[in-house]
Amino acid sequence: MTFRARHLLGIEDLSPDDIRIILDLADQYADLNRRPRKHSDALAGMTQINMFFENSTRTQSSFELAGKRLGADVMNMAMQASSIKKGETLIDTALTLNAMRPDLLVVRHPHSGAVNLLAEKVTCAVLNAGDGRHEHPTQALLDALTIRRAKGRLHRLTVAICGDIAHSRVARSNILLLGKMENRVRLIGPPTLIPTGAADLGVEVCDDMAEGLKGADVVMMLRLQKERMDGGFIPSEREYYHRYGLDAAKLAHARDDAIVMHPGPMNRGVEIDGTLADDINRSVIQEQVEMGVAVRMAAMDLLARTLRAEREGGTYA
Amino acid sequence: MTFRARHLLGIEDLSPDDIRIILDLADQYADLNRRPRKHSDALAGMTQINMFFENSTRTQSSFELAGKRLGADVMNMAMQASSIKKGETLIDTALTLNAMRPDLLVVRHPHSGAVNLLAEKVTCAVLNAGDGRHEHPTQALLDALTIRRAKGRLHRLTVAICGDIAHSRVARSNILLLGKMENRVRLIGPPTLIPTGAADLGVEVCDDMAEGLKGADVVMMLRLQKERMDGGFIPSEREYYHRYGLDAAKLAHARDDAIVMHPGPMNRGVEIDGTLADDINRSVIQEQVEMGVAVRMAAMDLLARTLRAEREGGTYA
Amino acid sequence: MTFRARHLLGIEDLSPDDIRIILDLADQYADLNRRPRKHSDALAGMTQINMFFENSTRTQSSFELAGKRLGADVMNMAMQASSIKKGETLIDTALTLNAMRPDLLVVRHPHSGAVNLLAEKVTCAVLNAGDGRHEHPTQALLDALTIRRAKGRLHRLTVAICGDIAHSRVARSNILLLGKMENRVRLIGPPTLIPTGAADLGVEVCDDMAEGLKGADVVMMLRLQKERMDGGFIPSEREYYHRYGLDAAKLAHARDDAIVMHPGPMNRGVEIDGTLADDINRSVIQEQVEMGVAVRMAAMDLLARTLRAEREGGTYA
Repeated sequence: MTFRARHLLGIEDLSPDDIRIILDLADQYADLNRRPRKHSDALAGMTQINMFFENSTRTQSSFELAGKRLGADVMNMAMQASSIKKGETLIDTALTLNAMRPDLLVVRHPHSGAVNLLAEKVTCAVLNAGDGRHEHPTQALLDALTIRRAKGRLHRLTVAICGDIAHSRVARSNILLLGKMENRVRLIGPPTLIPTGAADLGVEVCDDMAEGLKGADVVMMLRLQKERMDGGFIPSEREYYHRYGLDAAKLAHARDDAIVMHPGPMNRGVEIDGTLADDINRSVIQEQVEMGVAVRMAAMDLLARTLRAEREGGTYA
Repeated sequence: MTFRARHLLGIEDLSPDDIRIILDLADQYADLNRRPRKHSDALAGMTQINMFFENSTRTQSSFELAGKRLGADVMNMAMQASSIKKGETLIDTALTLNAMRPDLLVVRHPHSGAVNLLAEKVTCAVLNAGDGRHEHPTQALLDALTIRRAKGRLHRLTVAICGDIAHSRVARSNILLLGKMENRVRLIGPPTLIPTGAADLGVEVCDDMAEGLKGADVVMMLRLQKERMDGGFIPSEREYYHRYGLDAAKLAHARDDAIVMHPGPMNRGVEIDGTLADDINRSVIQEQVEMGVAVRMAAMDLLARTLRAEREGGTYA
Repeated sequence: MTFRARHLLGIEDLSPDDIRIILDLADQYADLNRRPRKHSDALAGMTQINMFFENSTRTQSSFELAGKRLGADVMNMAMQASSIKKGETLIDTALTLNAMRPDLLVVRHPHSGAVNLLAEKVTCAVLNAGDGRHEHPTQALLDALTIRRAKGRLHRLTVAICGDIAHSRVARSNILLLGKMENRVRLIGPPTLIPTGAADLGVEVCDDMAEGLKGADVVMMLRLQKERMDGGFIPSEREYYHRYGLDAAKLAHARDDAIVMHPGPMNRGVEIDGTLADDINRSVIQEQVEMGVAVRMAAMDLLARTLRAEREGGTYA
């Protein structure tokens, strides 16, 4: 069982074994992160560049801490303020950075597929930190780790993904991962926020929370992505909360030991009741954030091993 | 004599012994900082996050350098650009960061008390880098260290604090610290810029520089906080300088060996004469900046020792 | 042959031997940078501050990576967002930073001469990362290293520098360096973009590409600095490209083995044809970026050696 991936662009490219290898290593890093001295030298002397073309404090911070704890030299590029304003293309920017010889490039971009395109042009390992509506693989991996730690397994679970599925790369990556690990996935949300052709993904679709949550082991709420709803129907927050916001009453339809998840940042009182979000008996929302750092450490460590093996005895290029 | 504090939220919580312990260690770090190779491993493998909800290049830089020189992994969060815009609350932001398992959280916030509130919610050590008009403890500690190095002691001195006292957390923390160490404190400024009830703080109040500076060992000028004067009386800069700006003539009323201080950034020609500010025989303004790094190294080192002792043999909670 | 410079303010101050020492060491760092683990401890325990008063993602990134790979503690100051807004002067800002005891200060500033002024006020080593229309020494050094690696030598070459010479500190530093190393330099561009008195620099001037490129070993294109053309004649991009943009037809006038350079970021289709820029048989544009990190590592390492020798056995100041 060996991990050989060159990049981490999406869950789509990972085998169930790949996923298990990442999560097993992440479990070890989660232990390390709870110690006062939380350092490994897995990436010592290596260079990690975070290129965020879209703001995301929490994802960028998580990758930054992950790299620093592994001993990498980490550099953040605020791409808004950069040469892009001077008319440079994405590819030129990527080639320029690549010429500085980073080992790991973490990229977030507003356009689906932009990160894959970039990975073809560079010689370092690329990690997708979210591209348009396409994929957000480390989010799905951290959700998987959180589920596995809470439930003791990551297969034959019933997982309800609720809310704005259509605009969510988080949902897409989770559907792919949970499917690969042989779980039952239900999408719950208003028909306008369910992607057309969802049924082809091997998932159940439902527009009623009470019905959809029946027997669920995991209830995964999504953020309402207003910023991505261009022109289409935008529900009123009040009505949305009434029908699809998670509260204790709706959660009662799920299994008694069902856990509650949210990728954050939360809109309290829109997607989820604030008290429920803070209930440590049901909510694993803080644990998701914690596992995020661990999963990113594991993914970067594994990609760096591939890189070093590839370059063994020699130089790049 | 042991330092046991869990957080550094304000001078209010520190005993005279606590203050002495911090300053003694800071003296050692000040020596280290003058060497070309200025590194300790006091925070090696530990994570420091700087969360500045208010811009402050100099304070943030000082904390950043302090952490890096102690070997910590330091991460700056530009909170303006962050999830806060997406509607996340201060507490959600803090809990999210806390889940990433930092050891030290350095926080500046425009609201008085916000940092104390935050400290109740997290499991790491919190350092207040200034909250509203409440406290700015590391500023008072660096001022104290500067005074002690210049005067050879930190008790039975006469310290004049001059200018905009009402809007100044720097003044407030200094008054508390200097009082605890048994110094005589005089507040000098226009009545509109002296807080009501100042006399209850055990200080003298005076609205005339010539009179107030008599016998002063230390003359501490404050920045005119125009940005915090909402609606109230704003003096003209020219008139303010004439009456309260420090120049050689006014300084002549103080003791011959009185030192001149300013927390920066200075408004030359408003609070202080530029030539006087640069006079290395009287002004210790650059030394204040230098001691800032040393004091922050000492405070973080001591808090980290408490943390490690607490977690001895185990993991966090 | 010893390098004794205290600062790196401009090519003007360097001897041919200084240049050779920097480039020789940079060659070694270029090798190091191609390894997966790319670390030296040349600057371990030392503090580097990047003070950019003008945005420049690529130059700042290059210096940041250079410092981190040498083991320095690196801090970026976003000077726009800083105390400068609060009315602090350049000198006050510099003195404040200097009081934090950095060892290396990397400065970019929009005004010619500002970096030299600053170097007089501080006790650390200062590197000019570009000041107004004055100098950009590390750019000229990285160009020199790229040329030397491609051509096998850095003397008796014919180098054509093309485009907006008048607004370019890159051109100015390159003219100085190439002259010191006994090369033949030709400036090609519209008369409005050639500085008056260019002939006094010991260079040839020409306003026609076909004629100017004859016999050139190196064709160095410049960025059209529209942001620096205040009020004067701005050529239409289309006409500019037609007359001065580099394409295969114009390049045919140069030597068969001539290399093509551009400091970036490029305006494809304005200064240079995109296909030519990407042609790895002619273009060394990516190599320039790569050598940038190596040259900055070499320069900072050498300045740090001077600093340490100076302070041997003692402390600063």
